[in-house]
Amino acid sequence: DPKLKVFTCNANPQLAKEIAEHIGVPLGNSEAVRFSDGECQIKLNESVRGCDVFVIQPTSAPVNEHLMELLVMVDALKRASAKSINVVIPYYGYARQDRKARARDPITAKLVANLIETAGAHRVITMDLHATQIQGFFDIPVDHLLGVPILGKYFSEKGLKDIVVVSPDHGGVTRARRLAERLEAPIAIIDKRRPEPNVAEVMNIVGNIDGKTAIIIDDIIDTAGTITLAASALIEAGARDVYACCTHPVLSGPAIERIANSKISELVVTNTIPLTQEQLIDKIKVLSVAPIIGEAIIRVHEELSVSKLFD
Amino acid sequence: DPKLKVFTCNANPQLAKEIAEHIGVPLGNSEAVRFSDGECQIKLNESVRGCDVFVIQPTSAPVNEHLMELLVMVDALKRASAKSINVVIPYYGYARQDRKARARDPITAKLVANLIETAGAHRVITMDLHATQIQGFFDIPVDHLLGVPILGKYFSEKGLKDIVVVSPDHGGVTRARRLAERLEAPIAIIDKRRPEPNVAEVMNIVGNIDGKTAIIIDDIIDTAGTITLAASALIEAGARDVYACCTHPVLSGPAIERIANSKISELVVTNTIPLTQEQLIDKIKVLSVAPIIGEAIIRVHEELSVSKLFD
Ligand SMILES: Nc1ncnc2c1ncn2[C@@H]1O[C@H](COP(=O)(O)O)[C@@H](O)[C@H]1O
Ligand SMILES: Nc1ncnc2c1ncn2[C@@H]1O[C@H](COP(=O)(O)O)[C@@H](O)[C@H]1O
Repeated sequence: DPKLKVFTCNANPQLAKEIAEHIGVPLGNSEAVRFSDGECQIKLNESVRGCDVFVIQPTSAPVNEHLMELLVMVDALKRASAKSINVVIPYYGYARQDRKARARDPITAKLVANLIETAGAHRVITMDLHATQIQGFFDIPVDHLLGVPILGKYFSEKGLKDIVVVSPDHGGVTRARRLAERLEAPIAIIDKRRPEPNVAEVMNIVGNIDGKTAIIIDDIIDTAGTITLAASALIEAGARDVYACCTHPVLSGPAIERIANSKISELVVTNTIPLTQEQLIDKIKVLSVAPIIGEAIIRVHEELSVSKLFD
Repeated sequence: DPKLKVFTCNANPQLAKEIAEHIGVPLGNSEAVRFSDGECQIKLNESVRGCDVFVIQPTSAPVNEHLMELLVMVDALKRASAKSINVVIPYYGYARQDRKARARDPITAKLVANLIETAGAHRVITMDLHATQIQGFFDIPVDHLLGVPILGKYFSEKGLKDIVVVSPDHGGVTRARRLAERLEAPIAIIDKRRPEPNVAEVMNIVGNIDGKTAIIIDDIIDTAGTITLAASALIEAGARDVYACCTHPVLSGPAIERIANSKISELVVTNTIPLTQEQLIDKIKVLSVAPIIGEAIIRVHEELSVSKLFD
């Protein structure tokens, strides 16, 4: 059977280590370093000839550095005769640039898909794409994993009573329903309306939250504006307590300050994107996606081995 | 005739402005900005439908930021129905990763060529590629311009006497000969040899430099180690005076300090890469490539218009 090897670049080496441990293989020996002028250099310090290689690299900030590391790594693996190159992108950067919102917009999420294929990837494993349509931007197989089971398990075990799961916007209703089903809870939706141009948005809550423990769920929390305003609106409207959760803690700009000062009791995130020491405030709980991704890698590897029978 | 439009991203807006002025068109209205999380966003604020568009963007440091800006810009232009997308990359980053120097090396210069084509570029204009073979990495037309005429003109007009043009290594001999022909001067070559492993290299000078004014020429000056050591070796071996020149002033790490403290009387560079205020020390003279690139753009635009006759 072709050997399974796991490599990482610099975006999330800790997650890569956990995934390799889950699978029961050592992390591949490679380096992603920089020349004096900032050009990135990938060194593969072991053979990958004939191997099924999995590269763990979320394209989180600095996104362009991490994306380029991934592309150069794929190029190196291709030229080193890896049998299959499977890129594991737990957080897919540029996912919010997924359509022409204005005239003459680029569609960078599609561009990134093309770049990854051009570099030589054979398959993508990713999690909670901001828009599931991005799967169709690729002409290679995409395994799309969900964070809801991990988040749901955590909240189940916490034993909260009288829960309502809240979607912070209309786009997130499917995700909220998935979590609500696991928690056997109802859902509510925040309906943002701008009464007039240049007037602040008003948050109307659709659904019953009175006296309940609200759990807001989103895919990405970036500057945390939406989620912290939603928390205030929920408390004002009578919620007893507010939790928040997301798969991808981008947490840029004022995010941490906003969360610290918000009505949110606890923010539950996953480790698709690593948090810095300063970002890891007490209120934030991090759950690992390593078991889910590890299982997906094992499954894909089996599939790749079985498919050999039909080659 | 389809209209010629010139756009820029953030790598060298000053050069883009000079090029647009040379051609006699206004610089296109666009922005390359960043979201809070560092993702880049390109805004095209004017129509490019049916236009021959030229995007001026050297992929100098920070190379991954500038490369990604260029790729996203090309994607935006493509989706906005530009007739032709011509990328002008005065300095081609990653050009030194042009072959497998060690086992399992990536060939990033080729990867970058593939990325640029995938994004949707139709033609490339570039200058003094570190390896001219990189032209062959593209499947689209590449116009390869040379810095030697500009550097040669400057030194001719300076009226230096008893010149010898020096190549700092064997790879640069062709370039040194080109400059020497323009200055009607002989050449010399620095022959670096490492007598034993882990012993410093010895610089032997091949050619007569005694009492002469040496002009060292290279394509890229990066950390300036080679060129400043070469200058010392030339002075020690009897050169009266040492000038240095290059097309691409990368000048990373200790470069400026080394040049300031070196035996080099003057370093002549071009503006393919913009220098910061701190890099612009008295010893450094900057020549503009805007006229050469401007003429190349006019020529390509004419060619594109003429080719319509045969379409
Ligand atoms: N990195 C980013 N940070 C903030 N906003 C973004 C980012 N990328 C794209 N957007 C914007 O987010 C919007 C798409 O988000 P959504 O409506 O939630 O799918 C578009 O208007 C984009 O211009
Ligand atoms: N950005 C860079 N800075 C310094 N060295 C580099 C860079 N990119 C590639 N190299 C190395 O430079 C060598 C190629 O330079 P050359 O022999 O002059 O063509 C190779 O050994 C590369 O590993």
